[in-house]
Amino acid sequence: MYAVSKKFQLVLQNVAKHISLTDGEAEFFLSQLQEKKIKKKEFLLHAGQSCNVISFVTAGALRAFYEDADDKQSTIMFAITDWWITDITSFLNRTSALISIEGVEDSELLQLSNDALELLYSKVPKFERFFRVLMQNSYVREQTRVLQTLSLPAEQRYQNFLKKYPAIAKKVPQKHIASYLGITPEFLSFLRKKKPTRIS
Amino acid sequence: MYAVSKKFQLVLQNVAKHISLTDGEAEFFLSQLQEKKIKKKEFLLHAGQSCNVISFVTAGALRAFYEDADDKQSTIMFAITDWWITDITSFLNRTSALISIEGVEDSELLQLSNDALELLYSKVPKFERFFRVLMQNSYVREQTRVLQTLSLPAEQRYQNFLKKYPAIAKKVPQKHIASYLGITPEFLSFLRKKKPTRIS
Repeated sequence: MYAVSKKFQLVLQNVAKHISLTDGEAEFFLSQLQEKKIKKKEFLLHAGQSCNVISFVTAGALRAFYEDADDKQSTIMFAITDWWITDITSFLNRTSALISIEGVEDSELLQLSNDALELLYSKVPKFERFFRVLMQNSYVREQTRVLQTLSLPAEQRYQNFLKKYPAIAKKVPQKHIASYLGITPEFLSFLRKKKPTRIS
Repeated sequence: MYAVSKKFQLVLQNVAKHISLTDGEAEFFLSQLQEKKIKKKEFLLHAGQSCNVISFVTAGALRAFYEDADDKQSTIMFAITDWWITDITSFLNRTSALISIEGVEDSELLQLSNDALELLYSKVPKFERFFRVLMQNSYVREQTRVLQTLSLPAEQRYQNFLKKYPAIAKKVPQKHIASYLGITPEFLSFLRKKKPTRIS
């Protein structure tokens, strides 16, 4: 592989989990990425805007959330280093975003625009496979979350969250984890003080 | 296109929405499909089994649902003619299904096994694109449902359902639509008797 910066290495390693690129293909892919930095509490996307990029995180942490008319926030997803994040509905349908995305920490991103991604699919069709896997993993994640909300008590959902996303659990404030699990911060604090129930 | 049965025509038309196949590719794709029929109320998948197929509906209607320890059912998705249905988590991870799938009507399906799909990706890579689009549409559908549950009153969610899935609304019993919307059949009946609110 030719010499590239650390953040480019990160995204190439992420892509290499599912597809193998030639040097020429890797170079074309990297040429389509735009660098972006956001500060902690700064917004990458405001609800109501159109989200025309998909972002790969090379440093920091972000969260996507929905805010209702009473200002109550529900966290929809997190993204830390080596994760991709977007408002998928707005990105694909070119509609206004329903969610906002903000920095949980100062963060660095590599972004692919809608148009760059379409160009990538046409020039390097194996990216169809890469995003097929990314999309199916996202679908599985969303469906699992819906089913866990229907089937498991909050305590077990919290234990599952810690087990599945240990790096996120270390990085983001408890209140955001509570809003991801659909419980109050007070109840999460109560669960954290309890001895974990053994899950068979 | 060479002569094929009506159900094969249906699945080829579905695939043609996103990719173009040569006659040879179409023939190989069709050779990987298995036909399946199920009766009304018969189970295509029982929770606890492994779901190792993805099914395309050529006739009838099905629904996927989760049943909790108190026998309360939550409908997760419907599928009618021209739709695909599976337990995506079980299918991809080869784990036990959390959901069941049953015939809402006598139904006819064309099924791709896990192994057949992997073979299809390797022999006809353009199916990566087809399933990339299918997976991203499913992800959008799940995320939209989560966001609508957070953001819209039941009445508006019901109106959106009617508008988005008119053919499903005509085919499936009201109690299943209620359990998809997360409301009681009685409340859905109340909403149906109300004059629809104009949604700006």
